[in-house]
Amino acid sequence: MSPHLIGLDWGTTSCRAYLIGADGAVLTRIGDGPGILKVENGTFGATLDAMVGGWPAHLPIILSGMIGSRQGWAEALYARCPAGADDIVTALATIDHARRTISLVPGLSTQNDAMPDVMRGEETQILGALALSGRGDGLFLLPGTHSKWAEVSAGRITSFRTFMTGEIFGALKDHTILGRLMRDGAANAEAFARGVGEGVALDSAGALLNRMFATRTYGLMDRLPDTALSDYLSGLLVGAEVAEATKGARATVTIVASPALASRYTEALRLLGHDSALAPEDCVAAGHWRIARAAGLC
Amino acid sequence: MSPHLIGLDWGTTSCRAYLIGADGAVLTRIGDGPGILKVENGTFGATLDAMVGGWPAHLPIILSGMIGSRQGWAEALYARCPAGADDIVTALATIDHARRTISLVPGLSTQNDAMPDVMRGEETQILGALALSGRGDGLFLLPGTHSKWAEVSAGRITSFRTFMTGEIFGALKDHTILGRLMRDGAANAEAFARGVGEGVALDSAGALLNRMFATRTYGLMDRLPDTALSDYLSGLLVGAEVAEATKGARATVTIVASPALASRYTEALRLLGHDSALAPEDCVAAGHWRIARAAGLC
Repeated sequence: MSPHLIGLDWGTTSCRAYLIGADGAVLTRIGDGPGILKVENGTFGATLDAMVGGWPAHLPIILSGMIGSRQGWAEALYARCPAGADDIVTALATIDHARRTISLVPGLSTQNDAMPDVMRGEETQILGALALSGRGDGLFLLPGTHSKWAEVSAGRITSFRTFMTGEIFGALKDHTILGRLMRDGAANAEAFARGVGEGVALDSAGALLNRMFATRTYGLMDRLPDTALSDYLSGLLVGAEVAEATKGARATVTIVASPALASRYTEALRLLGHDSALAPEDCVAAGHWRIARAAGLC
Repeated sequence: MSPHLIGLDWGTTSCRAYLIGADGAVLTRIGDGPGILKVENGTFGATLDAMVGGWPAHLPIILSGMIGSRQGWAEALYARCPAGADDIVTALATIDHARRTISLVPGLSTQNDAMPDVMRGEETQILGALALSGRGDGLFLLPGTHSKWAEVSAGRITSFRTFMTGEIFGALKDHTILGRLMRDGAANAEAFARGVGEGVALDSAGALLNRMFATRTYGLMDRLPDTALSDYLSGLLVGAEVAEATKGARATVTIVASPALASRYTEALRLLGHDSALAPEDCVAAGHWRIARAAGLC
């Protein structure tokens, strides 16, 4: 198969480069490039060359993720929801580098109850997952430091919400009293399930500020072993998130993540009676392909 | 007035010592003693002597706060709610030091929806505030790193809940992306009120994990100045806490804290239509007096 496109999913902490064939097939993959925070003095061009310089020089290049943010190579402003590939294409930014024109995928913005929300990179993953599944609708979950839940209808991302769950968990564990009693141990599915159940049952935001403290008192009062406290807290937060994000939802949730990253969400969704399916790995390359095609780049 | 008692409110980060007259009147006060974390190698006795060695050697000494925890001088186990001075007295611990018997006030424990909760030191402050007000009922708020909300009926603390609001705010500001856009500035009452309003309106625990992110997007989208973001986040958390803690409550909330520490809660309570009153400073000494009297120490 001959290559048609080079696509990079270039985020804050990591970068993946794909040599892409017809229909978005991944021909070669470089998985260990540096995230934008690791690129010193704005030397993005040299970093790009070091990664993909061995691939055919005539191919179009498209970049998605935080590389298009104010902290990245150049700013690609946000396209507004609802947005599909055709809408995203109208907001593509370009950079001239080494006699090539490189395209930058814009982020998406939306608004929920007067609260603006933004994503960068996830839109390309979602479009790729849609292309590979042949579907045009659904609820998509992209877990991570900040997880994104996106609704898709007729091939367009209609709205989405960010949940800070992963980062909050880390801050609570590493920088509050809740981490003090925790001890590392084998994953404790029972403690996680208990957290999920309690997180789902909380009926106000303030109740969470109270219930988090159970991570300490369950330890103090020997209700949970110290090796289970981290899983309990994780379950509490993930359960609260999943309950809120799936309100009224009945369709299968498509999770776009590595199996390891997806597993806690898969389990929490199962506990709450929701089906989930894992999108193929590297579906972001199918997103690059879809956007590049819509833009007439390949 | 002649002294009858020496009382110490000895917490994790600070210690206050009181020379106490009849009816709990404060005759002298030392406000800058070291918290238990600053006492090296368990030299609590020497630290006590350095603080109160100049006061009459025949007076009984009573200590409340984290000094009675596992990390303190000696462990005074928890009394269970409902508990008033008479119940607390039955769980007093004692230490022999320099030919004196020193009493340690136990903490209190309670249970809400299968979640254990604990306090240490606040029970003495509440009993003192009750004694000084001449009342036996009410809803008490003790703000701080962890705030405690306690219900009192017929002179006994019937139940209480801990909210981690203060510590969570610090962890979010100093250890997550939310602090990145914040810039110090004059207090912004409008941004605080906006946060309170949004925090109150959140109808699930998960909604908080989403709405916190508005601290970032309001900044990114220029909806709030960077100097207002900290007040917005503070309002969001305090609003969520106050809404949950005052569910169904109509009585005046008594706040036991310095005016500076109390001010955000006073304002949030006002915004939510609740009256509040500030307990007298140093009311903890009246609590020491009340417990010491009930124990027959003075």
